[in-house]
Amino acid sequence: MDLEAAKKLLESGGDEKFKTIIDSLPHRFMEPLIMKGIKVDLIQPGRLLCSFTVSSRLTNSANTLHGGVTASLVDIIGSAAVYTAGCPVTGVSVEINVSYMDAAYVGDEVEIDARTLRVGKSIAVVSVELRKKKTGKIIAQGRHTKYLVVPSKM
Amino acid sequence: MDLEAAKKLLESGGDEKFKTIIDSLPHRFMEPLIMKGIKVDLIQPGRLLCSFTVSSRLTNSANTLHGGVTASLVDIIGSAAVYTAGCPVTGVSVEINVSYMDAAYVGDEVEIDARTLRVGKSIAVVSVELRKKKTGKIIAQGRHTKYLVVPSKM
Amino acid sequence: MDLEAAKKLLESGGDEKFKTIIDSLPHRFMEPLIMKGIKVDLIQPGRLLCSFTVSSRLTNSANTLHGGVTASLVDIIGSAAVYTAGCPVTGVSVEINVSYMDAAYVGDEVEIDARTLRVGKSIAVVSVELRKKKTGKIIAQGRHTKYLVVPSKM
Amino acid sequence: MDLEAAKKLLESGGDEKFKTIIDSLPHRFMEPLIMKGIKVDLIQPGRLLCSFTVSSRLTNSANTLHGGVTASLVDIIGSAAVYTAGCPVTGVSVEINVSYMDAAYVGDEVEIDARTLRVGKSIAVVSVELRKKKTGKIIAQGRHTKYLVVPSKM
Repeated sequence: MDLEAAKKLLESGGDEKFKTIIDSLPHRFMEPLIMKGIKVDLIQPGRLLCSFTVSSRLTNSANTLHGGVTASLVDIIGSAAVYTAGCPVTGVSVEINVSYMDAAYVGDEVEIDARTLRVGKSIAVVSVELRKKKTGKIIAQGRHTKYLVVPSKM
Repeated sequence: MDLEAAKKLLESGGDEKFKTIIDSLPHRFMEPLIMKGIKVDLIQPGRLLCSFTVSSRLTNSANTLHGGVTASLVDIIGSAAVYTAGCPVTGVSVEINVSYMDAAYVGDEVEIDARTLRVGKSIAVVSVELRKKKTGKIIAQGRHTKYLVVPSKM
Repeated sequence: MDLEAAKKLLESGGDEKFKTIIDSLPHRFMEPLIMKGIKVDLIQPGRLLCSFTVSSRLTNSANTLHGGVTASLVDIIGSAAVYTAGCPVTGVSVEINVSYMDAAYVGDEVEIDARTLRVGKSIAVVSVELRKKKTGKIIAQGRHTKYLVVPSKM
Repeated sequence: MDLEAAKKLLESGGDEKFKTIIDSLPHRFMEPLIMKGIKVDLIQPGRLLCSFTVSSRLTNSANTLHGGVTASLVDIIGSAAVYTAGCPVTGVSVEINVSYMDAAYVGDEVEIDARTLRVGKSIAVVSVELRKKKTGKIIAQGRHTKYLVVPSKM
């Protein structure tokens, strides 16, 4: 184990080309990056069914959909599903969890199925499942718990 | 609740400027985006202490560090901590969970403290905590569970 | 805040009557205690639908089903569901999580719906949901992740 | 896979002796059962360090501490730690998660270390870790998130 080499690798953050691109990115870039190419196939109170094709820009070193992207989708699509249930405030995240069950490769069509399990006065819980569109095989399942009052009262 | 408007908002993914930028991004862009600006303050077997300053490109609509970024850090820094423990394979993620406890604003200095709780032959668990460097106040705490054998045997 | 009083309360563990009963309990008593009165309504490969009536012995100080009982059901019924999927070993628990969404009172009929999300060679994940039988309202939803090889190889 | 046999096993809930004992148990028995024998070694605002010796009545079929007991301890001791932080209400559980890392056998001395990570006006989060007293090896680590207002406002 060469810890100095590991430190350098972690701090390099990719080559110079990446650095120039990243420094020039606009603010609040995370959400557009994750959501680009998402189609809404069904929207109902408390239910949101979306789909997208895995792009190479969102993969990890194993060339599969990055786990951080999946967690971000549980965050963003989960919040949107709570909104569809008629919730007047967006609230803040309390807990997000994700079980990773299968890899998704570049070009794979992925279905995101978000269902609110509870939307109360203060606490909302939503389940978000990613599946391969062709086979229905589950890629990941997570839950997102939100506190529905303004952050200052948290 | 105007569900059609919500659908349009979700599918728009930001304005045209975002779209052009995103389409031109290189592959495996997620990890460099999240890791840019991370400093490694301490690296030991099973322990990794890092720090970064919250940039505006990684914020959400409330101008605070995006929850998906925090989850991605639990993923990436957690994996790196398992690696420092001398684990010969990087493995695959089984479960990631995050409790969100406080908001981090643009310019805030954040400390990331990752500690392996268990590194066995097949299963590793690591705790990752984000704190405000100035006050020590916890922003988020998560756990990342990895399966340490090659994906095909999963 | 009287910390000494809190300490005494935690250590008392109920009055003397409880102590005598508990000391005389047989070994491996937890599972029979939790499972007593459970009916299996449906059993299929990867699916287990059970039901029970909330008993007063399993309530907390608010007279509702104890959170530890719900977590134990996610553990036990989740394991049984993995077994129905044809898994040759019972394996060990890696992670259990539960979102609590509604209270269940003494006499409430509760449905437990367990579905395997993944049963691989080494890792299984099962979702376990508790619902009120009358209304279908969700009481709790959890996931149980198991490592399917013998503990010594973990 | 003999599903009918599995159904019978699940519904039997142990032999007749268990049934008679269980039917005669007083109400709210879960908490005394789990807490019997717990010693409070340290109690401070936001911190609770306890210990106990694993009893045979709380083991599973592998003769190790039952996963449901560990989850119940994360529930109960976690709630008590929130109380030590000066919280005026006990609140309700929102989420409990547990990573299981090592087995504890009958006679093993176990340390329970509970620390509040956040105690706000509405949301509290506490970390609960179980360790072997002799070696410090982690048996399990969990988090318990509570909503601190009365259930009717949830």
